[in-house]
Amino acid sequence: MPAPRTLHLNAFLMNAGHHDAAWRHPASSPERVTDVRYFQELARTAERGRLDSIFFADGVALWGKARYNALGGFEPITLLSAIAAVTEHIGLIATVSTTFNEPYNLARKFASLDHISGGRAGWNIVTSGTLDEARNFNREEHLEHGLRYDRAREFLDVATKLWDSWEDDAIVLDKERGIYADTDKLHPAAHKGEYFGVAGPLNVPRSPQGYPLLVQAGSSESGKEFAAQYAEAVFTAQQTLADGQTFYKDLKSRLARYGRTEDELLVLPGIAPVIGATEAEAKALERELTELQVPEYGLAQLSGMLGTDLTGADLDGPLPELPEEREINGNKSRFTLVAEIARRDGLTLRELIARLGAGRGHRVFAGTAEQIADQLEEWFTQGAADGFNIMAPVLPTGLTDFVDQVVPVLQDRGLFRTEYEGRTLRENYGLPRPANRHTR
Amino acid sequence: MPAPRTLHLNAFLMNAGHHDAAWRHPASSPERVTDVRYFQELARTAERGRLDSIFFADGVALWGKARYNALGGFEPITLLSAIAAVTEHIGLIATVSTTFNEPYNLARKFASLDHISGGRAGWNIVTSGTLDEARNFNREEHLEHGLRYDRAREFLDVATKLWDSWEDDAIVLDKERGIYADTDKLHPAAHKGEYFGVAGPLNVPRSPQGYPLLVQAGSSESGKEFAAQYAEAVFTAQQTLADGQTFYKDLKSRLARYGRTEDELLVLPGIAPVIGATEAEAKALERELTELQVPEYGLAQLSGMLGTDLTGADLDGPLPELPEEREINGNKSRFTLVAEIARRDGLTLRELIARLGAGRGHRVFAGTAEQIADQLEEWFTQGAADGFNIMAPVLPTGLTDFVDQVVPVLQDRGLFRTEYEGRTLRENYGLPRPANRHTR
Repeated sequence: MPAPRTLHLNAFLMNAGHHDAAWRHPASSPERVTDVRYFQELARTAERGRLDSIFFADGVALWGKARYNALGGFEPITLLSAIAAVTEHIGLIATVSTTFNEPYNLARKFASLDHISGGRAGWNIVTSGTLDEARNFNREEHLEHGLRYDRAREFLDVATKLWDSWEDDAIVLDKERGIYADTDKLHPAAHKGEYFGVAGPLNVPRSPQGYPLLVQAGSSESGKEFAAQYAEAVFTAQQTLADGQTFYKDLKSRLARYGRTEDELLVLPGIAPVIGATEAEAKALERELTELQVPEYGLAQLSGMLGTDLTGADLDGPLPELPEEREINGNKSRFTLVAEIARRDGLTLRELIARLGAGRGHRVFAGTAEQIADQLEEWFTQGAADGFNIMAPVLPTGLTDFVDQVVPVLQDRGLFRTEYEGRTLRENYGLPRPANRHTR
Repeated sequence: MPAPRTLHLNAFLMNAGHHDAAWRHPASSPERVTDVRYFQELARTAERGRLDSIFFADGVALWGKARYNALGGFEPITLLSAIAAVTEHIGLIATVSTTFNEPYNLARKFASLDHISGGRAGWNIVTSGTLDEARNFNREEHLEHGLRYDRAREFLDVATKLWDSWEDDAIVLDKERGIYADTDKLHPAAHKGEYFGVAGPLNVPRSPQGYPLLVQAGSSESGKEFAAQYAEAVFTAQQTLADGQTFYKDLKSRLARYGRTEDELLVLPGIAPVIGATEAEAKALERELTELQVPEYGLAQLSGMLGTDLTGADLDGPLPELPEEREINGNKSRFTLVAEIARRDGLTLRELIARLGAGRGHRVFAGTAEQIADQLEEWFTQGAADGFNIMAPVLPTGLTDFVDQVVPVLQDRGLFRTEYEGRTLRENYGLPRPANRHTR
C-alpha cells in the first residue's frame, strides 16, 4: 500500500507580513526587518511546524511607495545562507531573476547554498517584469515578455549544464598518488547560444541535490509553458476552487509533452490565512488591517499590478478602462487576475484595494484554525493543490499561529507530516535528485 | 597620549591551505572543503585569536589544474553570510569582480552582508585577469587591463551612490500616521556613465558600516592608483623588507592627490608562516610540503601567473624568455614579481616552483613563533606594513598554530589587541564610517 498523499507547505515570508498595513499593526516588528535574527526566528518557527520550506520573493528595484511601505530588502541568497546556518531541515527558496543575472554566477551561488545548507536550496525562477528594474541595469525599456522567457530557457539550459559539470564522484583525493580529481569526470559546459556563451566547468563540485529545487510562479501562457518544461513546484494565485482546479489541470496536462509525469511538478496556490480563535475574531483582525491601509499606497500597488497609472482616480468609482493583457509587458497573469476580481465582484477601487491588501491577488481566508484546515483540505483533495504557499498577513504572529494552530489540525487529519521525511528539500517535497547528464 | 600603534591581522583562508600540496599533507582535511562547518570553525579560530578579519580570494572559473588541486569554490558572499551567523566579531572580506558583475546586484549583496553581520563586511575589489573567466561570460578575449580599471572606477562610483541612496535615518516607522520612510531622505543614484546606467535607489537601507570596508590587491601601476583612490586596506605580495618599504611608501604617497591621509589606507603584505616548535621543525615541515608538490601542477600554476605556457619546459633549466609586463593582460604585478624572484636568485624552474609553492609569490617564512613575530614586528616598525595577510600553508593547523603561538607573542609585545576595539570591521581596523554624500 502506498503512503497516503500528504500536502506540502511553504512559508512565504515578507518583512512585517503580507498585508499592506502589516507594519502598522501592533503585533508586527517592522524595525526588525534589517535584523537577520528576525528572519532566522521566522525560519525556526516554520521548521518547528515541519513546513517544507521558506521562500523570499524578490525584485531588483525598490518595491512599493516607500513613504507608506517598503517590501523585500536583503538579497535572498545571502539572507538564506545566514538562515541555513541556524536551521537543519527547512528548505530555502530564493527568487532570482534570469534577466538581470549571468548563469555562471547564479549557478555557482545556488550550488554554494545547496552545499552550505546540506541540500536545502530552491530557486524561484523569475524573468522580472518592471521598468524600475530595467532602469537599474542600463535599460530604458524592459526586455519583451516573450524574449524574457527565451532568455530564461537558455539560462536554465546553461545552469543545468554547469550543475552537471562535475560528476558526483569526480573528486578523488588520493593523497598518496597526488590525484585531486578524476578529470574524466569533469565536463565543460561548452555552451554557445543566443544569449550566453559559457565555457565551464563550474568551480563548485556537484551539490547534495544536484540542482536546487526549481520553482516558478508565472501563470501567463509563457509562464505555464516554462513551468511545464522546468519547474518542480509552482506558486500560483487562484481565488476560487474552480479556478484552482482549472489551473491545476491545465498545468499538469502540459507536462507530458516534455516527457514528464504529473507527480514531477507540485502546484502550491497561495493563501493568506487570517487566523482567529473564533471566526468573529478572525474577521475583526481582517477589518483592523483594512482600516490601517493607506489608500495612496494601495493605489500605487494596484497601478503597478495593472501597469496603468491610477494616481488621482476616484476611490469610490469602478476600476477605469484597462488595456488588453497582450499589451502588458509586466506580470501578465497578475494583471488578468486583478482585473477579473474587480469585474466579477463589481468592486470600487477602494474595495479592490481592501481585497488585495492581504495577499496582492492571492486568496485571503479569515477563520478559525479548523476552518482554514477545511479550506486547505478541500483544495488538496479536490484537485486544486498539492500543497500551499502560506502568506501570513502579519509576522511573526501569523506564522506562529499557523504553526501552533493550523498545522496540528492538518497533522491530526493525516494530511501533513509530523516529522521530516528526508534530509534535503527534494526529499521532503518527494521529488527525485536529478541524474547527471554525463552518467545517465 | 595617543594609543600605541598596533598591527592588523587578516586570515586569508584557502581550502586545505595555501601550499600547493597542502591537501596531500596528513594535517589537512581536503574532504571538508565543501562542508560549511569547516570554514565556520576556521573563522572561529581566527576570532579566538582576535584577528581583524578573514578573507576569501575568488575567481569566476575553475582555478588550478583540477587533476592535482582545485582552489576556491563557494561563492564568497554566500559563504561569508553562513559564517556571519556563527561569529560575532571577525570581519568578513569577500573578493568580487567588477568585470563580471552588475553594480546594483553587488551593492545590494554587500549591503545585505553588512546588515546580516552587524557591520563586518569587506569587499576585495578585483578586475579579474584570466581568459578562463572571460570565457564563462560570453567573451573570447579578456577586457584590456586599463579598461578593466576604468570600469572598476565607474563601478565604485555607482556602488557608493547606491550605498548612500538611503540616509541613515530615512526609515521613520510612524505606525500612527502610516509613514514608513521619509522619502526626502531617499535618493536616486541617477547614474548615466560609460559602462553603467543605474536609476536607484538601492532596495536595502544604509548598512551599519555605510560602505563595506574597501580592499584592493592589485599592485600594478593602475592597481596602485585605483587603491590610492578607493581602497582602505591593500593586500600585497612583497618578498623583502626593502621591497615592502618601497611599496608602502609609494602607495601612501599617492593618497594626497585624492585628498586622503596616510592613515586612511592600511598596507597588509602577505606572509605564509611555516611554524615549528624549533626552527629545524619548521624547516622540516617546509621540506615535507615541497616534497609533496606535483611538478605538473606547479608548472601549470606558474604558466598562469606568467601568462606563458610552460608545458614541457625543462624543470632543471632556467625560466624561459618572457614577454614584457606591458604585454601581459592578466595580473601584471604578479607576473613581474615572479619573474623577478627567478632572475634575482637564479632559480631553475623546479626551484622556482618550490619557492612559489607555499605562497604563490607571497613571502614564505619558516621558523618558531618568536622568529615569526620578529619578522612581523620588523616590517611593522620599519615602514613596510600596517599589518599582515596571514596565509597558513596548511589548514586548519597552520591557523591554529598562528593563533595559539604567534598571536600571544605579539600581544605580549604590545603589538596586537587582546580584545576587539569595536563592533564593526571598520572600528577594528581603526577606519571611519563614511559619511553619506547627501548629509555631508
